[in-house]
Amino acid sequence: MTDPQGLGRSPRFAQIASFARLPQSQDLSAAKGVFLGIPWDDATSFRSGAREGPSAIRNNSRLVRSYNMFAKVYPFRVLNIVDWGDIDPVPGFLEDTFQRIEAGLTPIFKAGVVPFVAGGDHSITLPILRAQKAATGKSVSLLHFDAHFDTWEAYWQTKRYTHGTWVKRAYEEGLLTKGNVFQVGIRSPLYDAQDVPNNAAIVHRTYTTEDVDANGYAPIMDQVVSEIRDDPVYVSLDIDVLDPAFAPGTGTPEPGGLSSRELIHFLRELYRLSVVGFDVVEVAPQYDHMGQVTALTAANALFEGMSAVARRRSTSR
Amino acid sequence: MTDPQGLGRSPRFAQIASFARLPQSQDLSAAKGVFLGIPWDDATSFRSGAREGPSAIRNNSRLVRSYNMFAKVYPFRVLNIVDWGDIDPVPGFLEDTFQRIEAGLTPIFKAGVVPFVAGGDHSITLPILRAQKAATGKSVSLLHFDAHFDTWEAYWQTKRYTHGTWVKRAYEEGLLTKGNVFQVGIRSPLYDAQDVPNNAAIVHRTYTTEDVDANGYAPIMDQVVSEIRDDPVYVSLDIDVLDPAFAPGTGTPEPGGLSSRELIHFLRELYRLSVVGFDVVEVAPQYDHMGQVTALTAANALFEGMSAVARRRSTSR
Amino acid sequence: MTDPQGLGRSPRFAQIASFARLPQSQDLSAAKGVFLGIPWDDATSFRSGAREGPSAIRNNSRLVRSYNMFAKVYPFRVLNIVDWGDIDPVPGFLEDTFQRIEAGLTPIFKAGVVPFVAGGDHSITLPILRAQKAATGKSVSLLHFDAHFDTWEAYWQTKRYTHGTWVKRAYEEGLLTKGNVFQVGIRSPLYDAQDVPNNAAIVHRTYTTEDVDANGYAPIMDQVVSEIRDDPVYVSLDIDVLDPAFAPGTGTPEPGGLSSRELIHFLRELYRLSVVGFDVVEVAPQYDHMGQVTALTAANALFEGMSAVARRRSTSR
Amino acid sequence: MTDPQGLGRSPRFAQIASFARLPQSQDLSAAKGVFLGIPWDDATSFRSGAREGPSAIRNNSRLVRSYNMFAKVYPFRVLNIVDWGDIDPVPGFLEDTFQRIEAGLTPIFKAGVVPFVAGGDHSITLPILRAQKAATGKSVSLLHFDAHFDTWEAYWQTKRYTHGTWVKRAYEEGLLTKGNVFQVGIRSPLYDAQDVPNNAAIVHRTYTTEDVDANGYAPIMDQVVSEIRDDPVYVSLDIDVLDPAFAPGTGTPEPGGLSSRELIHFLRELYRLSVVGFDVVEVAPQYDHMGQVTALTAANALFEGMSAVARRRSTSR
Amino acid sequence: MTDPQGLGRSPRFAQIASFARLPQSQDLSAAKGVFLGIPWDDATSFRSGAREGPSAIRNNSRLVRSYNMFAKVYPFRVLNIVDWGDIDPVPGFLEDTFQRIEAGLTPIFKAGVVPFVAGGDHSITLPILRAQKAATGKSVSLLHFDAHFDTWEAYWQTKRYTHGTWVKRAYEEGLLTKGNVFQVGIRSPLYDAQDVPNNAAIVHRTYTTEDVDANGYAPIMDQVVSEIRDDPVYVSLDIDVLDPAFAPGTGTPEPGGLSSRELIHFLRELYRLSVVGFDVVEVAPQYDHMGQVTALTAANALFEGMSAVARRRSTSR
Amino acid sequence: MTDPQGLGRSPRFAQIASFARLPQSQDLSAAKGVFLGIPWDDATSFRSGAREGPSAIRNNSRLVRSYNMFAKVYPFRVLNIVDWGDIDPVPGFLEDTFQRIEAGLTPIFKAGVVPFVAGGDHSITLPILRAQKAATGKSVSLLHFDAHFDTWEAYWQTKRYTHGTWVKRAYEEGLLTKGNVFQVGIRSPLYDAQDVPNNAAIVHRTYTTEDVDANGYAPIMDQVVSEIRDDPVYVSLDIDVLDPAFAPGTGTPEPGGLSSRELIHFLRELYRLSVVGFDVVEVAPQYDHMGQVTALTAANALFEGMSAVARRRSTSR
Repeated sequence: MTDPQGLGRSPRFAQIASFARLPQSQDLSAAKGVFLGIPWDDATSFRSGAREGPSAIRNNSRLVRSYNMFAKVYPFRVLNIVDWGDIDPVPGFLEDTFQRIEAGLTPIFKAGVVPFVAGGDHSITLPILRAQKAATGKSVSLLHFDAHFDTWEAYWQTKRYTHGTWVKRAYEEGLLTKGNVFQVGIRSPLYDAQDVPNNAAIVHRTYTTEDVDANGYAPIMDQVVSEIRDDPVYVSLDIDVLDPAFAPGTGTPEPGGLSSRELIHFLRELYRLSVVGFDVVEVAPQYDHMGQVTALTAANALFEGMSAVARRRSTSR
Repeated sequence: MTDPQGLGRSPRFAQIASFARLPQSQDLSAAKGVFLGIPWDDATSFRSGAREGPSAIRNNSRLVRSYNMFAKVYPFRVLNIVDWGDIDPVPGFLEDTFQRIEAGLTPIFKAGVVPFVAGGDHSITLPILRAQKAATGKSVSLLHFDAHFDTWEAYWQTKRYTHGTWVKRAYEEGLLTKGNVFQVGIRSPLYDAQDVPNNAAIVHRTYTTEDVDANGYAPIMDQVVSEIRDDPVYVSLDIDVLDPAFAPGTGTPEPGGLSSRELIHFLRELYRLSVVGFDVVEVAPQYDHMGQVTALTAANALFEGMSAVARRRSTSR
Repeated sequence: MTDPQGLGRSPRFAQIASFARLPQSQDLSAAKGVFLGIPWDDATSFRSGAREGPSAIRNNSRLVRSYNMFAKVYPFRVLNIVDWGDIDPVPGFLEDTFQRIEAGLTPIFKAGVVPFVAGGDHSITLPILRAQKAATGKSVSLLHFDAHFDTWEAYWQTKRYTHGTWVKRAYEEGLLTKGNVFQVGIRSPLYDAQDVPNNAAIVHRTYTTEDVDANGYAPIMDQVVSEIRDDPVYVSLDIDVLDPAFAPGTGTPEPGGLSSRELIHFLRELYRLSVVGFDVVEVAPQYDHMGQVTALTAANALFEGMSAVARRRSTSR
Repeated sequence: MTDPQGLGRSPRFAQIASFARLPQSQDLSAAKGVFLGIPWDDATSFRSGAREGPSAIRNNSRLVRSYNMFAKVYPFRVLNIVDWGDIDPVPGFLEDTFQRIEAGLTPIFKAGVVPFVAGGDHSITLPILRAQKAATGKSVSLLHFDAHFDTWEAYWQTKRYTHGTWVKRAYEEGLLTKGNVFQVGIRSPLYDAQDVPNNAAIVHRTYTTEDVDANGYAPIMDQVVSEIRDDPVYVSLDIDVLDPAFAPGTGTPEPGGLSSRELIHFLRELYRLSVVGFDVVEVAPQYDHMGQVTALTAANALFEGMSAVARRRSTSR
Repeated sequence: MTDPQGLGRSPRFAQIASFARLPQSQDLSAAKGVFLGIPWDDATSFRSGAREGPSAIRNNSRLVRSYNMFAKVYPFRVLNIVDWGDIDPVPGFLEDTFQRIEAGLTPIFKAGVVPFVAGGDHSITLPILRAQKAATGKSVSLLHFDAHFDTWEAYWQTKRYTHGTWVKRAYEEGLLTKGNVFQVGIRSPLYDAQDVPNNAAIVHRTYTTEDVDANGYAPIMDQVVSEIRDDPVYVSLDIDVLDPAFAPGTGTPEPGGLSSRELIHFLRELYRLSVVGFDVVEVAPQYDHMGQVTALTAANALFEGMSAVARRRSTSR
Repeated sequence: MTDPQGLGRSPRFAQIASFARLPQSQDLSAAKGVFLGIPWDDATSFRSGAREGPSAIRNNSRLVRSYNMFAKVYPFRVLNIVDWGDIDPVPGFLEDTFQRIEAGLTPIFKAGVVPFVAGGDHSITLPILRAQKAATGKSVSLLHFDAHFDTWEAYWQTKRYTHGTWVKRAYEEGLLTKGNVFQVGIRSPLYDAQDVPNNAAIVHRTYTTEDVDANGYAPIMDQVVSEIRDDPVYVSLDIDVLDPAFAPGTGTPEPGGLSSRELIHFLRELYRLSVVGFDVVEVAPQYDHMGQVTALTAANALFEGMSAVARRRSTSR
């Protein structure tokens, strides 16, 4: 097979669907970035199905090409990205799964390789952040795109590890740098008025969709960059930050969200940050249709994330 | 079952789907608002299917939670909302159905309870307005979100009661306060150039999507509020005011419409009006897909309408 | 609302969708049968989504009417069936969920009421059978319709409680009467040749689709009846016993299955057995389309099961 | 355009979709058969949508070719079939619609042309039968394929004209020859035990799916032919006679129905009868998916009906 | 049939679906504009299916009405538009198909009739432009709405005629006026950094989605109009210029595109140009769902294009 | 990753979707069978989309397990099957594509490895058969499952290489052993009465669906086996041999086809023949829905084909 993102011999609908038809490998010696999937969806509170996220994202990533003309970079080449495969979850068993995720990601972070992760439900970000800390010994800043706070204490009265509690857990476990947690796109109805101050105790700045509406992405990203500066930052993108028109295939969709064009604007600013990890979670393709716009947009978001990291590292800059 | 919108025992995908899993009741003594469905779709001119609107809206309303952080209010608690059930139509027989709707709504308006209605096609708003007049003896102002005028004289040459004639009928029957009829989101191609002056003879101000585009929601709502002031107002929301990307599941979709975020902005201003009734009509879920973004957004629009009414009435304000 | 399955006032697409629009109640004093849902899907090994089974089955059961002309019985009236609601699972936490299922079902079995259960994945049958034993102190015979053995020892190497291991667990726990376990519709590829003798150590007779093909339902059911005789029997129907053409909305579909007509024939013979419980599991409506043939057929299978129990008990016979 | 069913210049996915891409014409002078659509769905009791039946059937009929090798006949050529267009209904107004149907069909029957009608809900067969009587002065025999009796007295307590009452009305109005009404495929649950004798008072022989299962199509058709002999017969095919796997796109689907192969067998026997009219009703394509198997099968059933009539009339026989 | 876009006898879901139910004719003597389809999709590089574009666009155009209140014009009447039918492609054989397209379009351009074409994949625009040149002897300006450059040299190493190379071929063949080629909506990832200067060598101005975002449609169209002035211009609209939320049913969807409202704004400015031909291509309805928002929006775009041409020519201006 | 078809560490919805998650390799030294895809769909005459067949079949093959209890064999182990990848087509260019297919398959046949091919439209079988002849110098017997003859002379008047002419071409080119061509499942309407004798001139025995109906699979396969005996045979399975209920996702669906259970019966008899190649073609997943029953059944048919070959070769027999 010739250059798999190119105009060459192999049409993009052909061949086995690794991410962007990149090489399949777990060798970290040459890569500066890896794509990997975590097909876990047992910590969802409404619609299940995100276990098919990695598969759908790979399938729809086949259309992606090599060069980002906005970032002026070849992300796959600059970062030498490979498709690492999936971390196998243990369906129905959260603790075992979290251990596997942490075990799988730790060597990646240790090697200084940036993981670009396709979820899976949002609970997976907690063990990823644990791996980051385990590998580097340091907390990270968090830039969190989402319709929801994800700072709740527990679901079903006693369950503290779900897709809606991971930010709080990560904060409590010292995985996040205090004062450096940022949220963008928040808009869902809440369980309780107290949720607002509870969230504010953890999250430094919360930008709602009304904030995005008022002034656009630029002042938000300027503020985020000015505060995070050169600290390592983890970017976690819940696809439900998009409006259901743009991302119907997700577990807890909330009307009134971002457009994909707005999201891409935000992501194109990421080159101004030192991104050490990036995930796109909560793609549940069963709730989309044959056009699979959700997985397609998730694949593109990963491409933009890769481009931003590559742009920052590119010797051509 | 514990608090059905809460984080408690019952996951939101469980239990029988009343609206937002609220209590089912027809007791009006405690409620200040009721949800009810009117599954009638025999007055549609293109795609049928809105009879499944109430069912789909209930099903997708299960995700809605208790507290609206933008309106700073608990709408269900403040208004003590219950799910009243559906008004049974007589399929194929418009007059009988209109009588049942009027008979069903009159006691609700008499009790001073605000009905939040899920249609059904748009013809149902006429008997709802008749019930309002029958109960209070007074006309109301109308705030009408739609892609279409709905002020035509007749369809199929002689049929005067359809989903495209109800505004004219309501106006002729004295159900609407002269000078206080407002339309937002109009954009469809017309049958005739004469439709424009004909509509203008009934509707005080018609804001097209080009008007929305030019200046956004704020000046429009300022104008509406400044003219309606404290008069009772009925809000009728045809889901086709949204672009088909946001609301594909509807009978006469027209490209170029509002986004769900724009719609929510409009609805969040409703607390400045004295809303006595609110409907969301023309959800035809067969024309959506598994993600059911139309019904989901309709459920959210009802939540925002309830929040606006609750905010106005809330003692905390 | 008049007779909800009748020709009367309320069209069948109207009103809140309890099962067959039966009364909602948890009062066991008058009922001889209850419908209940168990929306749990965290023990599935391939496609998730069965948590939406109860909701989809209720929605599609609205079409069902009162009288079964083949069984010559009114099942809802004879058994005075109510919709009990759902047992709330604890998503992601299997043990808690199993405890809730057992706790919920035990009083039903104690009251001598026959539960007609809509799953949920197949793991739920284990705690139902535990409840049956807890309530009566006795094991039951099992008539198991499925494409799969469900007698595996463990999944993911160590996990012993999944939708593919429940028959083995139930057998080991003494919940099933030795020699009285029967399987119909088996056809899936296996993990290992050893699976066949392992299954045979638990299951008395296994009828594959080739057996059904050779001679039809009649000799199979004659044999089952002649061996079970009057012993209490639990019937567990995995909807994947049907071919994917008839039941696409399921988690582990296997081509080559039964037709819905064949299944109905089997179910119409159940009146010859003393059925004490009946479940239909593994309906995952996201993998079906708008026509929802899977949930519709599941609702009908429940109707046939209810009819068979009612026929046996009917005083008119 | 060359022979539109042929292998010639025009691919079958091209050109405007008249039925089988036959010529569009209302000239009855040369035709012995016409295709026409009646897009009416306001008399349905569950799912609406059959107004899109004619459009979907035309679209999927494009695949049909010229020669039926089982009937050994070219149906379009022998009968010189044209696409007459649709009879315009008056949505929401049953009486006006029935008058238009009767007015449209009467000249067709008068001309001795066989109408092949695509519905529309099943209520349309009543005015078609009225037109037949008006044109010829004689009643006809009826061969009725359906899951349902359609002999009920009224729906919603007082409404006597619906898709579930037309057989009774036609019988009362003297449109059907006494003793010559036959039903095939009956299986739905009933409203009341009394429905059985009520149906038997009108229908001479009712073949349920259990009857089909027991002996197949051959003895049934032999019996029907031996009793109807050479009397003119109208064939009315409710697509829900098929199992929902074969025809999901319909308003009141009932599991346990015929396969499309069984149906085709029945239809291939029609050449033994003197068929004067033929309809396929209740195709609601919204409840199918992109594959549109229901409309495709309906188009094929029309092709088989046309083939049977042509075979009987063919000079080559 | 009365006025087919009117409120009269024929509901818009009835009758055979020509475009907007306009008369079917190939007589060019009276028409100033024709609708025609070109169902060809063998030159696509990712998802196939655009052969069904004309059929889907016709079907969804039935909703379109007569009068455009924004353009203040009756486009069908002013241009006396007819549905010409389709040009038959030769599936699998590109050269034959191109010859048929050129042969079909040449007399239309010669007659001074404006073709409004529904594709088909984007390769069809090359033979249309050849026909234009053959008919008039002159090149045209090009206004090209697309997510992609379509100025590549070849695909699969040697294939120079595809849906991604037609602009380059047209330019090389002298079909386009140098300096008068404009692109709007460009945003896709590229194969190579060199693609940017290669495109710039052909295209005078390329407006990306970032350009649209920055200042909106007005300055872009002002610039285009000021440069093209009164020269004849061909408008080619690849539906993938829209975001996948608005146009999922297409072959190479790219997130981050225009909204349908933005597109309509662009199209409403076309009356300022001398448009001699207009196409909407790459509608692949299989990748949409039952709501068919892509084909619906394409039908509307054609209506706006027709309105712009009519507005310019209208004697009422 | 442990045994990818096993019960071990990796859930079957995880990891990159090679066929049945088998190893990816083009090394023919150890394999006795290979899976490969040929994603070509430009020779289809109705619905396109089969280019996505290999991708959909791989995705749905993940559910397949190791052991076939009916054939009593482990097909993957016995044949040491690998996923070879796809042969890259040249979209729009039939001759280039055929050359690539022949070039790709020739070494496989030369190595004595049995190719199990996922199409792609049916035209691909011609170059596969050319490769077979090129590799071995000998013609083969053909067992052809299909709704259509595929023995037409040409489409669009002059085009001799399409998905409907390959059998005739193969016969003319001497690729098929005279007298040893067999067809099963034929039923489509024909273009011309002459098609029947034309087909009979090439095909030794043609079994229609009426033949299958009359006596089932057993006598047909007995006859085929008795005539082919030990000659090498190629099996070509057009998925449209199945009824559209079982295989909606295909290009030219014909109602009245086989059930998947009937098909599996036929395939289980293949161990009695010396199968040297096997393909499953015409899966167009866009015309299926989320449940993807067509691709699932195609994956299973490949598993049964592999099992039959393995059973014949198995040392355990």
